[in-house]
Amino acid sequence: MAIKNAFYAQSGGVTAVINASACGVIETARKHSDQIGAVLAGRNGIIGALTEDLIDTNKESDAAIAALRHTPSGAFGSCRYKLKSLEANKAEYDRLIEVFKAHDIGYFFYNGGGDSADTCLKVSQLSETVGFPIQAIHVPKTVDNDLPVTDNCPGFGSVAKYIAVSTREASFDVRSMAKTSTKVFVIEVMGRHAGWIAAAGGLASDAETEIPIVILFPEVRFDQERFLALCQERVQKFGYVTVVVSEGCKWPDGKFLAEAGTRDAFGHAQLGGAAPVVATMIKDAHGHKYHWAVADYLQRAARHLASQTDVDQAYAMGRAAVELALAGKNSVMPTIVRTSNSPYAWEVGSASLSDVANVEKMMPSEFISADGFGITQACRDYLVPLIQGEDYPPFTNGMPQYVTLQNVAVPRKLGQDFQLK
Amino acid sequence: MAIKNAFYAQSGGVTAVINASACGVIETARKHSDQIGAVLAGRNGIIGALTEDLIDTNKESDAAIAALRHTPSGAFGSCRYKLKSLEANKAEYDRLIEVFKAHDIGYFFYNGGGDSADTCLKVSQLSETVGFPIQAIHVPKTVDNDLPVTDNCPGFGSVAKYIAVSTREASFDVRSMAKTSTKVFVIEVMGRHAGWIAAAGGLASDAETEIPIVILFPEVRFDQERFLALCQERVQKFGYVTVVVSEGCKWPDGKFLAEAGTRDAFGHAQLGGAAPVVATMIKDAHGHKYHWAVADYLQRAARHLASQTDVDQAYAMGRAAVELALAGKNSVMPTIVRTSNSPYAWEVGSASLSDVANVEKMMPSEFISADGFGITQACRDYLVPLIQGEDYPPFTNGMPQYVTLQNVAVPRKLGQDFQLK
Repeated sequence: MAIKNAFYAQSGGVTAVINASACGVIETARKHSDQIGAVLAGRNGIIGALTEDLIDTNKESDAAIAALRHTPSGAFGSCRYKLKSLEANKAEYDRLIEVFKAHDIGYFFYNGGGDSADTCLKVSQLSETVGFPIQAIHVPKTVDNDLPVTDNCPGFGSVAKYIAVSTREASFDVRSMAKTSTKVFVIEVMGRHAGWIAAAGGLASDAETEIPIVILFPEVRFDQERFLALCQERVQKFGYVTVVVSEGCKWPDGKFLAEAGTRDAFGHAQLGGAAPVVATMIKDAHGHKYHWAVADYLQRAARHLASQTDVDQAYAMGRAAVELALAGKNSVMPTIVRTSNSPYAWEVGSASLSDVANVEKMMPSEFISADGFGITQACRDYLVPLIQGEDYPPFTNGMPQYVTLQNVAVPRKLGQDFQLK
Repeated sequence: MAIKNAFYAQSGGVTAVINASACGVIETARKHSDQIGAVLAGRNGIIGALTEDLIDTNKESDAAIAALRHTPSGAFGSCRYKLKSLEANKAEYDRLIEVFKAHDIGYFFYNGGGDSADTCLKVSQLSETVGFPIQAIHVPKTVDNDLPVTDNCPGFGSVAKYIAVSTREASFDVRSMAKTSTKVFVIEVMGRHAGWIAAAGGLASDAETEIPIVILFPEVRFDQERFLALCQERVQKFGYVTVVVSEGCKWPDGKFLAEAGTRDAFGHAQLGGAAPVVATMIKDAHGHKYHWAVADYLQRAARHLASQTDVDQAYAMGRAAVELALAGKNSVMPTIVRTSNSPYAWEVGSASLSDVANVEKMMPSEFISADGFGITQACRDYLVPLIQGEDYPPFTNGMPQYVTLQNVAVPRKLGQDFQLK
């Protein structure tokens, strides 16, 4: 088998552990230097391929690559840029092939979520459609946990842990203050269409530590009257209430609770501000003093509180992607297969990209309690293993030591710059 | 010396380490059971004294008290309730004395910030003003770090660490996304009048890890034009910018950037929402996509990321308060005295409450950079020691194990309930 280079890119919103997957890809590739020459990373994701802006990861020391395992964010830059279909924009595919040929790339590792799986699928078909030999493997990543087939998605476990812990901590705070001050605390969490992250807020309360939590899921039609009644009931019983609201929560007419009005490159509405809407609503109805938080990027970047399980799985997905490539596979994605709930056990599987691309896994209805405002035991059984273990980054002088790579550019071989559409 | 009971109460906003001070008070008192009979805690702060709602901390096991050291929030409940002057509301002081007499209380430990120091001062004067023998010791606590005399305040170091780490993590995230998506990240932090917490955001950037951070301090007159120009300059140079905005930041006319319009029991305006105001302002001026976070209670409750220095100092303040009482002191507050910057060293001192009450320590002007948007080396030298060390709580099943005390009520000895004003 001829030695070929590999292309690796990070796509879409980054996470606390996407670099652990990068670490898995690069460390595994380095172990197979008889088959993979160099891992060339796209600077800012697929845009790096289109503009021939490639990063030579071989210029990074083993120690720097190892440090990716404990560094949040996308070390090579990510992007929100969705390839159109081959028919709609053949120029982009021609350009990809031109760049891949120029840099002798035979492997395409794409680290992203649902939209990216679709891009990866299109690239994987280039052998068939235009006769360019390439093996495209998708490396799963999304805090939204909404990829199908795989039991869970790298990135989600750490957000889940952060939201569960933060919700518990803030709830202890408001409980302390409730007698004369704040009685309502609202935390807004990510999850545009699926309520997985919101569900994790429910883990703040358990058999040993009871906390009155009300969750607003994007999957559940928002019933303002029942919601306000439930909050008041909890305040009367516990003295306070904590509300976890998903950014994706909608009014019955389909509008988001708070829609900023702008849209990203994928055409998704840019959200933010459901928490103040909900907090004010409760204040207006019942007069309680409130506080609210919007965790935003803090939740998905919080490597300081990453789940050990999540870090291990993110790394394993990166490693498995390379192993699948070396085994001759194309158009697949390594997956996490749960083999036991208690004790939790998992192994690596794989899925065909045609089963993954453009399929969004919602919360199963049996994970949401009958009243629509909480999680069931089945949901708890699913979630708890994913937040197991702490994998603290090294600290120096009070601060976590996250690596910033040199990101040395591979010399260009093609003449002209490519104009992005 | 006759054995007397002690009263302990938590006051005002709680912190990640106020319970570590409670732990210091109670463990030290237990070691001196020949002089202090029981530590009776006010349920919900001073309100517990006024309503004779006292908690018998002797009902708690040594293990439960020890666990306070790693548990955020106020374990006995706190309150926002400021005693008026003796002249303005003599009934409250009469009631305090009635309750203290009934429960044989000779020591008053009050764990709070500036407003609470004033209450503690008034109680300390009861021996003189009405002939009731009591020793009142203030235990310093405030995330705002605005108490005078003491080098720093327990509670602040942990918030500072949380904000420094979170700002670094989120900045890595936005740096990854900046090519095609978010270029501006705004994080809103606490600090109504003093910019200490905002300053801590500046620690996210250091010699090893450069991050373009712009800080909006409450101490600096907001200059929108210069601010917007600086943000644009940073975006052009680095590709992105992170803004740390204090909730206390004001327009030149004195109005808060975002004022919710409601006021708490001390008459302070309830704030929130400066971040979206700032983010939108930049978007309108320069068109950049933004994200914003409001950390709110998450920052002051984040015991999972507490500073070891802060935890040690909070405990030491509680212990020192009891030792001062046993040494016969009244109307004092233990303080943290910095004896060396590098290596950092500190010892316990004490201050007269008359020097502490109602004095607010602002950021010295030499801590704010000449342009008004950053911190100086002197500020860095001051802050860095305070975030040193990690003191992780124990985790079980993926979640931190915070204690909830039984909080058993002391049987009432007085007939009628007291009506709070």
